[in-house]
Amino acid sequence: MKSIVDLNCDMGEGFGHWSYGDAPDDALMGVISSANVATGFHAGDPNLMNRVVCLAKEHGVSVGAHPAYRDLQGFGRRYIHATDEELVNDIVYQIGALREFCRRQGVRLQHVKPHGALYMEAARNESLSQHLVEVLRACAPDLMLFCMDISKTYRIAADYGQPVIREFYADREYDQSGSIVFARKVAQFDPDQIARKCLRACKEGRVETVEGDDIEIAFESICFHSDTPGALEIGRAVRAKLTEAGISIAPAALQMSPAA
Amino acid sequence: MKSIVDLNCDMGEGFGHWSYGDAPDDALMGVISSANVATGFHAGDPNLMNRVVCLAKEHGVSVGAHPAYRDLQGFGRRYIHATDEELVNDIVYQIGALREFCRRQGVRLQHVKPHGALYMEAARNESLSQHLVEVLRACAPDLMLFCMDISKTYRIAADYGQPVIREFYADREYDQSGSIVFARKVAQFDPDQIARKCLRACKEGRVETVEGDDIEIAFESICFHSDTPGALEIGRAVRAKLTEAGISIAPAALQMSPAA
Amino acid sequence: MKSIVDLNCDMGEGFGHWSYGDAPDDALMGVISSANVATGFHAGDPNLMNRVVCLAKEHGVSVGAHPAYRDLQGFGRRYIHATDEELVNDIVYQIGALREFCRRQGVRLQHVKPHGALYMEAARNESLSQHLVEVLRACAPDLMLFCMDISKTYRIAADYGQPVIREFYADREYDQSGSIVFARKVAQFDPDQIARKCLRACKEGRVETVEGDDIEIAFESICFHSDTPGALEIGRAVRAKLTEAGISIAPAALQMSPAA
Amino acid sequence: MKSIVDLNCDMGEGFGHWSYGDAPDDALMGVISSANVATGFHAGDPNLMNRVVCLAKEHGVSVGAHPAYRDLQGFGRRYIHATDEELVNDIVYQIGALREFCRRQGVRLQHVKPHGALYMEAARNESLSQHLVEVLRACAPDLMLFCMDISKTYRIAADYGQPVIREFYADREYDQSGSIVFARKVAQFDPDQIARKCLRACKEGRVETVEGDDIEIAFESICFHSDTPGALEIGRAVRAKLTEAGISIAPAALQMSPAA
Repeated sequence: MKSIVDLNCDMGEGFGHWSYGDAPDDALMGVISSANVATGFHAGDPNLMNRVVCLAKEHGVSVGAHPAYRDLQGFGRRYIHATDEELVNDIVYQIGALREFCRRQGVRLQHVKPHGALYMEAARNESLSQHLVEVLRACAPDLMLFCMDISKTYRIAADYGQPVIREFYADREYDQSGSIVFARKVAQFDPDQIARKCLRACKEGRVETVEGDDIEIAFESICFHSDTPGALEIGRAVRAKLTEAGISIAPAALQMSPAA
Repeated sequence: MKSIVDLNCDMGEGFGHWSYGDAPDDALMGVISSANVATGFHAGDPNLMNRVVCLAKEHGVSVGAHPAYRDLQGFGRRYIHATDEELVNDIVYQIGALREFCRRQGVRLQHVKPHGALYMEAARNESLSQHLVEVLRACAPDLMLFCMDISKTYRIAADYGQPVIREFYADREYDQSGSIVFARKVAQFDPDQIARKCLRACKEGRVETVEGDDIEIAFESICFHSDTPGALEIGRAVRAKLTEAGISIAPAALQMSPAA
Repeated sequence: MKSIVDLNCDMGEGFGHWSYGDAPDDALMGVISSANVATGFHAGDPNLMNRVVCLAKEHGVSVGAHPAYRDLQGFGRRYIHATDEELVNDIVYQIGALREFCRRQGVRLQHVKPHGALYMEAARNESLSQHLVEVLRACAPDLMLFCMDISKTYRIAADYGQPVIREFYADREYDQSGSIVFARKVAQFDPDQIARKCLRACKEGRVETVEGDDIEIAFESICFHSDTPGALEIGRAVRAKLTEAGISIAPAALQMSPAA
Repeated sequence: MKSIVDLNCDMGEGFGHWSYGDAPDDALMGVISSANVATGFHAGDPNLMNRVVCLAKEHGVSVGAHPAYRDLQGFGRRYIHATDEELVNDIVYQIGALREFCRRQGVRLQHVKPHGALYMEAARNESLSQHLVEVLRACAPDLMLFCMDISKTYRIAADYGQPVIREFYADREYDQSGSIVFARKVAQFDPDQIARKCLRACKEGRVETVEGDDIEIAFESICFHSDTPGALEIGRAVRAKLTEAGISIAPAALQMSPAA
């Protein structure tokens, strides 16, 4: 039974004159405790990054970098065959860019969470995860790395002593392997049902899979997506349900994984 | 009469598979004391930035960010009508990106020098220079700002207490106003002649203008361009001439302007 | 008194996962007769371009290229200091890209209308307009060039014999000089009021300026913007009002300016 | 025994201020009969495209589009997981852009040859090749598609009746399967040796593999790469050797594959 959990969401995923997602960033900021801020490669531009960092500061929300493949057209959801070193340099570049806006606004960069296809690639690619963690040890030894419990990323970060935070996906379903299932049932997006799923995960450390069985799930942060229809209602329902049950929503910095 | 001066050059101005300039970066690193590293908007990519920072570290050369307008095709030499806030956010983004590679390689980011059209725009645009300096006070109060003596940038940086370094252009001619003249005479690119011009500037604080008169010139760093034909020979000639005369070449960090 | 007029609107101004504007493209297609399709430099990507051309074909709407400065972040609304040749090459590239999608879908490319800052720059820059028209004479002698009556673009296109269409701006106000005023009064965006303004312009060739006087206005096409709040209602109101008055809405190809 | 063969080379693979490859485009134009012109996604910009088309026209060299993955940093050599429709739209966009410069300069677009990783992907991906050929049938039924004899692209283009040209790679080695081997032996880059290899392929339709055996090879065009060290010498040696042997070098348009 958790007494405290982080609630994270992707933020600032517009670009120039375009905005993205179902809910405005400032409303979502009132609900979450950690923001994954797009850093310009799949979304996000310098002006938007600065505004989102300001917004996070106003709401006491912790800021993380959300680096991606360099693919604005594909929104970072297309795999690009690149070397580990190329991808890690892309990540370093993006972390640094956001960190400077944090310095501008006087806040501390809390975490890094690769976006989309890059997150999934790191999860299964041991060599990439290892190179990433080794480089983070050098440039960002205090930066918390967000990932899934069953990922290569988690195991390697824990081994190297990099701070690490595991995520539970509120608006995705799980299969028996502990992986996220991308085929979504619409019924799942009932905010109250999602909130109950999150509460149970916090209390029992268990989630029901699409196959109908329970699996154990370990995490320190709950993630939902700003572009999920009804994102704001989902976030509010989760926050309300957990708070009522006596579970505090607080930035990941207070929820460090025991492994790290 | 100076006993010490900085020698700076633009570095890492390739992109992906393309390289740029007359001389290879590693040879130039053996000559200079400060490198202005392209940060991705006019040139430079994350892999190249990492390599150039490594190279600078090996040679004991100080590293600076060389942010530009977002214009890869135009190499940052075309003015873009944008607000001060947009341009300063572009600069903040690029400084941060490079600073993270410095953290990766364990070196300190020494300075920032806007590139090309952005450098010239800041030089004459008081409002832009002021906004830039105010933001640097917040995110990078120790970062030295490279600029020309007669620029708005210099005056404002000095007023705000931002560390500032003035440049003397080895491979450009001056007019009576103290400005750089873009029409170049070929004869000027004789390395020895350039070296003598630099030595005189260091010893007497004077340079002959295209009109044939002398003007006073104040600076703490000498700049030459890696894409000037014969760049490496120019750099070597300047270094040799100054060193022979007892003037040390050393990073700008040791040459702080009295104004700052 | 016109018996027929074109009604044009910008289309396809999303990019990748982002969409833009108040009204969906397919609804707007039911109202207009000519679509200005974004061609990738300020907005638009190959997939979107193909979809918009399909949509236009389904609705019997004529297709035009909407080339812009290469500035995705600035949405083509920022001036870039480039040579005429650079800008015209940018336009040629974008026209060709869209024309190939027209070939794919079996429709004919009807017109070209520069976007945003590039449209305004061409309007006042005689040298740019002349270079553009000369190049269009070579590669696209049948392509209608959309512009304002008082622009340099119009005069030069007419002189060279390039087909030309003048626009009346439904959702912008005019001043005494015949120029568009960028400060908008909210009251103007009443769809019925805009429709009456358009009807009067069609019947009398006159529009009331912000100063309160009437000026004469010559045009073959009426433009409204898909990102103007209430764009769909505006388009529907204009179409209904003109149709009721016996004025047909038909593609520009049927409305050739007498000057051309 | 051939009496005529095409000689093709990639051209215009610079971008903005960057150039690429061992030999200048204008010198290479004097050697080849078909130019594959970079179309902006891996290299090439509108100004360069226009210049290369002019150059090709001056030299009587046929022009082809060289579309690539949208990956300027990776020079189109990195696979991007995208749908067939996305990739084909990228190709359509790039073909059209170049075709408009051909219209500007009054030359006819002869062929299309996907670049780098996209060429290799199409070669082995039947679904992508089929979608590409189907779309070419609609928008460019006369455009010759360059590919390898053993590729899916060739078989499908031939089946659909799309004009098709098979290539022999002068500066690459072959293995038993008829595929190109990417590990290069330096000795292979002796221009005279390459020229003899090309002559034998033209006369006997055979090439020696890296394993030491002969395989049959069918082609209508010989390709060499402008970034191969000594590219110009290779091109000149091949042209001289073939011409001496009575084999004419002429654009692919005169060498149509019997399959098509």
